[in-house]
Amino acid sequence: MRGDEDTDVGRLIIKGPDQPGVVAAVSGALSRAGANIVSLDQFSSDPEGGRFFQRTEFHLPNLQVRRAELEDVIAEEVGAKFGLHCTMLEVKRRKRTAIMVSKLDHCLMDLLWRHRRGELAIDVTMVISNHPDLSEEVRRFGIPFFHVPVAKGAKPEAEREQMKLLKGNVDLVVLARYMQILSGDFLEELAVPIINIHHSFLPAFMGASPYQRAKERGVKLIGATAHYVTEDLDEGPIIEQDVIRVSHAMSTKALQRFGADVERQVLARAVGWHAEDRVLRDGNSTVVF
Amino acid sequence: MRGDEDTDVGRLIIKGPDQPGVVAAVSGALSRAGANIVSLDQFSSDPEGGRFFQRTEFHLPNLQVRRAELEDVIAEEVGAKFGLHCTMLEVKRRKRTAIMVSKLDHCLMDLLWRHRRGELAIDVTMVISNHPDLSEEVRRFGIPFFHVPVAKGAKPEAEREQMKLLKGNVDLVVLARYMQILSGDFLEELAVPIINIHHSFLPAFMGASPYQRAKERGVKLIGATAHYVTEDLDEGPIIEQDVIRVSHAMSTKALQRFGADVERQVLARAVGWHAEDRVLRDGNSTVVF
Amino acid sequence: MRGDEDTDVGRLIIKGPDQPGVVAAVSGALSRAGANIVSLDQFSSDPEGGRFFQRTEFHLPNLQVRRAELEDVIAEEVGAKFGLHCTMLEVKRRKRTAIMVSKLDHCLMDLLWRHRRGELAIDVTMVISNHPDLSEEVRRFGIPFFHVPVAKGAKPEAEREQMKLLKGNVDLVVLARYMQILSGDFLEELAVPIINIHHSFLPAFMGASPYQRAKERGVKLIGATAHYVTEDLDEGPIIEQDVIRVSHAMSTKALQRFGADVERQVLARAVGWHAEDRVLRDGNSTVVF
Amino acid sequence: MRGDEDTDVGRLIIKGPDQPGVVAAVSGALSRAGANIVSLDQFSSDPEGGRFFQRTEFHLPNLQVRRAELEDVIAEEVGAKFGLHCTMLEVKRRKRTAIMVSKLDHCLMDLLWRHRRGELAIDVTMVISNHPDLSEEVRRFGIPFFHVPVAKGAKPEAEREQMKLLKGNVDLVVLARYMQILSGDFLEELAVPIINIHHSFLPAFMGASPYQRAKERGVKLIGATAHYVTEDLDEGPIIEQDVIRVSHAMSTKALQRFGADVERQVLARAVGWHAEDRVLRDGNSTVVF
Repeated sequence: MRGDEDTDVGRLIIKGPDQPGVVAAVSGALSRAGANIVSLDQFSSDPEGGRFFQRTEFHLPNLQVRRAELEDVIAEEVGAKFGLHCTMLEVKRRKRTAIMVSKLDHCLMDLLWRHRRGELAIDVTMVISNHPDLSEEVRRFGIPFFHVPVAKGAKPEAEREQMKLLKGNVDLVVLARYMQILSGDFLEELAVPIINIHHSFLPAFMGASPYQRAKERGVKLIGATAHYVTEDLDEGPIIEQDVIRVSHAMSTKALQRFGADVERQVLARAVGWHAEDRVLRDGNSTVVF
Repeated sequence: MRGDEDTDVGRLIIKGPDQPGVVAAVSGALSRAGANIVSLDQFSSDPEGGRFFQRTEFHLPNLQVRRAELEDVIAEEVGAKFGLHCTMLEVKRRKRTAIMVSKLDHCLMDLLWRHRRGELAIDVTMVISNHPDLSEEVRRFGIPFFHVPVAKGAKPEAEREQMKLLKGNVDLVVLARYMQILSGDFLEELAVPIINIHHSFLPAFMGASPYQRAKERGVKLIGATAHYVTEDLDEGPIIEQDVIRVSHAMSTKALQRFGADVERQVLARAVGWHAEDRVLRDGNSTVVF
Repeated sequence: MRGDEDTDVGRLIIKGPDQPGVVAAVSGALSRAGANIVSLDQFSSDPEGGRFFQRTEFHLPNLQVRRAELEDVIAEEVGAKFGLHCTMLEVKRRKRTAIMVSKLDHCLMDLLWRHRRGELAIDVTMVISNHPDLSEEVRRFGIPFFHVPVAKGAKPEAEREQMKLLKGNVDLVVLARYMQILSGDFLEELAVPIINIHHSFLPAFMGASPYQRAKERGVKLIGATAHYVTEDLDEGPIIEQDVIRVSHAMSTKALQRFGADVERQVLARAVGWHAEDRVLRDGNSTVVF
Repeated sequence: MRGDEDTDVGRLIIKGPDQPGVVAAVSGALSRAGANIVSLDQFSSDPEGGRFFQRTEFHLPNLQVRRAELEDVIAEEVGAKFGLHCTMLEVKRRKRTAIMVSKLDHCLMDLLWRHRRGELAIDVTMVISNHPDLSEEVRRFGIPFFHVPVAKGAKPEAEREQMKLLKGNVDLVVLARYMQILSGDFLEELAVPIINIHHSFLPAFMGASPYQRAKERGVKLIGATAHYVTEDLDEGPIIEQDVIRVSHAMSTKALQRFGADVERQVLARAVGWHAEDRVLRDGNSTVVF
């Protein structure tokens, strides 16, 4: 959220079983390495036998050169000793990001536009769509657009083509209103986080025509949820949510328009927080620092 | 929402098929009767063949005496002529209201407290509970408290006792966290509007322990929905909704506490709007003026 | 907000002293003319001697041809008889709109983008800036960009050039972060509504560096206000406002970024409502239907 | 916000100049003392030469007995070594709190009611009012009510009486719509945090009749701000703020009612966070963990 990047700023993400002495070990190791802790967020799901989460941002002169050495120290003094999972990241290495989209452009355009303004600490390296409609829009931003049609019954072939484009080339995939379901095999093989956005209501209206059905029930709030994609469709860990107030005087079309506004705000926040390593998965939940 | 009542202020609620000339007929009839329209809200679900809703607040000197005559004129010139359903109400006749509650007191206390402060244009004439716990609290406000236990398998008997207390005595029932389901027969026989409040999430978590499950999914917004009760449990027309932001750092208990805060705000708004005849049912939806 | 336009849909805006019979007269006149009222919003500031506001949307076959005749009837039966100010508008005649901007592009881009998506019922006919920076962006949307520099001490000359471009050509001016104060003479001569957007805080931080000062005070909400421009700088009637939650962990730069997000949402809503004639000025306040 | 208290849970609040090694020193000291860190929040206003804030909640068996020893270790290894200000608190020792109020009861009642429900981790030890009106309400909760009238020109005498009641007896004073200004001398002598609540608008309307003036300007959001009291009236560090949406259709009285609703929510949150030592002053700003 602060986002003022620096070449010598690193992040250390730690997850695992909570136990006495972890925080001291982490900060001790960083301190002895000459790193100055810029910010530290820590959360324990339960004082007794809970799960532990820590995000530390630190400044270390000449980070790029000294990183490997620091990683070894952390792996030994924290990872091995406490049985924790430790990940080190350099702030200047932005996550290479692919955006997948179908025909609706509001989320895509908002991401590209924020990206160009420097609001999102990611590198958008490609846009993949199952429709050719948005190619011109995307290329205007200087970003490659790949059209991978998904013919009926030929999703495996399409996923193979998508995989060729993505595998090894991206650290993050954002589904900006991509209307195809990705297979479990695809998710497993790609093995990078995938963020999805979808409309949300109180209560939920599953299935077709949710806006129409929300209107028929007199819903007063229209919302959106950004979450990580898992095999259970739309059931993955939630990153961010928001709502907007609507009234009976609005048509279903107007509700959709308001919904689109919430969707792009929520997705942009979720991608921005993920880009800054603020979102730590905790089973099917998230810790957002 | 404005609520500054007046002895000579009336309300005319009109519902039915939309057609040319309705607004003119209504305002013409009121005008000829010497009534001055104070406020008028009108909504048509569709310009072509839609449903029409109108709420008119008017000032007519000596309303109580002249009301019957005015009702006849409206019935003839608007009701009969256009096939519309017309209801006239005097603002000074507040809706006699029963609150039903189980053990959780936050919604009940908020209603009683706002009622005493003059914020809700209702008369709370009784509180009915299936538990004795809140009797002292209620009676402190000078309001009768009736304990009607609901023994396992003896709901029909309990409902008969509740019906004796309510039938003919109330214009509105508010379920302020009343944890028993009212039977369809009961709803039909009582035949007054019943407002219920319940927690809501994005998405919904049906069934047991919703807060626990919301936490396990990383939900970022906790909400509440006030709705009219119909035979379909928790599926009635929505009157009002709201949400509050929560975080991973909050325990399930804290989520419930925040949820309680939203519930009492939402229920108080819904009851207040209903009290002022601002909520018009439209099938399973509502028009809130 | 509904915005589904139609060639035969008109709007009638009425303002003036409240008095018995006005609503009847308006709806009677429309009805006799064969117009079907699609929606009607009415507000009286006070039942006794208040100010009256009405917005009526109606459908009249062959509106363009029959408009003059209808206007005459309204002028006579409503305007002259009740001393009210009546304005008739055709929905299909969109307001010709100029956007004025300096260097910050977030509000401009959001308006152009929504305009292209069909979300705003205006015609953007030109963009005027005192800087050349955004010319390419604007022209990419197919909209003329005029660079009118404002040299120090030469504002009158600049305003003359702006006036030549605007006078007679626009029905609305939107200041999308235009950082120059327009003179009272300019406002008077141009004589069309001008909508401005600016940041807002609780409390206000007047003068320079408001975000820095808001941060120094520990402000938790960052907001924006869209208002009509009057001679009193930033003191005109408010059309729309909103806020977003911020925290101590955000830098001044991050606060500005959040502020920009609120600004573009609030300005877009204000322009959209004005475009649909939903905003009626009431002295230094507004009635928003 | 989590608030599940425990007899052996302590909090360590640290403030001062940021420098490398602080976090390591703190967590090392706690760890060696056998304390298990339950939660840790840390914030640095600037990586280079900023101000450092840390709130650590820890579990230490037999805390009450071992507290003095631990405090000595922290004072030496952290306080003296790094020039930091360290405060240790036991969660089970709730802050003794006096509420001061005039005639408006909404904030007072909300605090007393939440306090009774166990939502606020404070001990309300007295209520002081310059009017006798609310005595019965307060005493019903079993809380002492002291009436200290403030005669015109006799504020020093009143403050002397208030001081006798408060001095040494309270750790916190909450001004729940107390309409008298406390003198600088009083604040200095009492020397405990004082939390105040007041209405807030976008923009601010200073001076008399703010709701009336907000209405005249067409304000769309009504808000409230809770802040620490300093000598500069209403200018102290902000703890919490919130807003609610209003419309032109609401009377000034209705705006006040909505304002009262926001005030009690915001004040309750501010008091609750202060009670849990979540609010750290940073000059005229706050860090809220």
